[in-house]
Order: sequence, then structure tokens, then C-alpha cells
Amino acid sequence: MDATPPAELVELRNSIDNIDAALVHLLAERFKTTQKVGRLKADLAMPPSDPQREALQLARLRELAQAADLDPGFAEKFLSFILAEVIQHHEELAAGDR
Amino acid sequence: MDATPPAELVELRNSIDNIDAALVHLLAERFKTTQKVGRLKADLAMPPSDPQREALQLARLRELAQAADLDPGFAEKFLSFILAEVIQHHEELAAGDR
Repeated sequence: MDATPPAELVELRNSIDNIDAALVHLLAERFKTTQKVGRLKADLAMPPSDPQREALQLARLRELAQAADLDPGFAEKFLSFILAEVIQHHEELAAGDR
Repeated sequence: MDATPPAELVELRNSIDNIDAALVHLLAERFKTTQKVGRLKADLAMPPSDPQREALQLARLRELAQAADLDPGFAEKFLSFILAEVIQHHEELAAGDR
């Protein structure tokens, strides 16, 4: 196969790279915020996870996804993926010496 | 436990909700772009995945994550998570009647 990708593919990949840079920066900001939540919860001896809050987040994200023409099932998988990481951070904070 | 979360937690959660709305919209745009890539690859009979491109994406995202103070290991997990979905879409496109 030709090693040089077609121009149209290069252009699409440049857009994907721009979107990915934005996603990484937003994720960095999200984890900075959830670290603050984690510290607050640890200070107040609140449990790391909150099923009621998570149910609200899920319903909202599914709606936003639908409006943006993103598969709501994927939005759900995405939220679970992020929350698993966040809850792990919170548990580490709650367990650690602070 | 008191059902009303502390004001500081509410404020942090509002920021998280704003970030999540932005993430969902960016993800929607990313999948719109990768759908175009998928159609182009299917038209040109290119394979759905491209390990060389993925290695470049990974190295770049790890660098961006480091600069943004996001765990590069998490950025790597995130990219794998997204790519698994994209490659599944591409395989569906390549296999389907178009």
C-alpha cells in the first residue's frame, strides 16, 4: 500500500487531532475538579461514590448525546469509564494520609 | 446523612456538568469525523485500523496530557477506549451494504 495517505484523510485526521487536544485539556480540568470533590468528600467523611448523583448525570448525558447525534449508549459507556477512574481517585484520597 | 450536599460540592458539580456537556459535544464531533474517515477507508479498501497512526496519536496525547497535568496513563486508556469504538464503527461500515 502507498505510504502516503490521501489528502482528504490527512485533513480529517488533523481535525481529529484538534478535537483530541481539546478533549485531553477538558479531561485534565475535569479531574482537577473531581480531585477537589474527592478532598471535600474525604474531609466530610462522605462516601466516594453517590449513586443518586450518578443516575442524574447519566440521564442528562444521554439526553445531551441524543441532541448532539452521539449514540446515548456510548455516552453511557463513556461516563462509566470516567467515573470508574474518579471513584478510584476518591478511594485513594479517603484511604491515604492527608 | 443530610440529603442536601454542601454548597461547595454543588458548585464543583456544576463545573463538572459544564465540562461533561462540552466533552459530549466534542465526542459527537469526533465520531462525525471518524465516520467520514471510515467511509473514505471503506471506499479506498483501506484497513479499518492503522497501528502507525495510532502510535503517533498515543505519543502526542501522552505529551499533551503531561503538559496539562493529566495522568498520561489515563490519556492512553482514554485513547484505547475511543479507538475501540471507532474501529468497531469502521468494521461495520466496511462490512455493511453502502
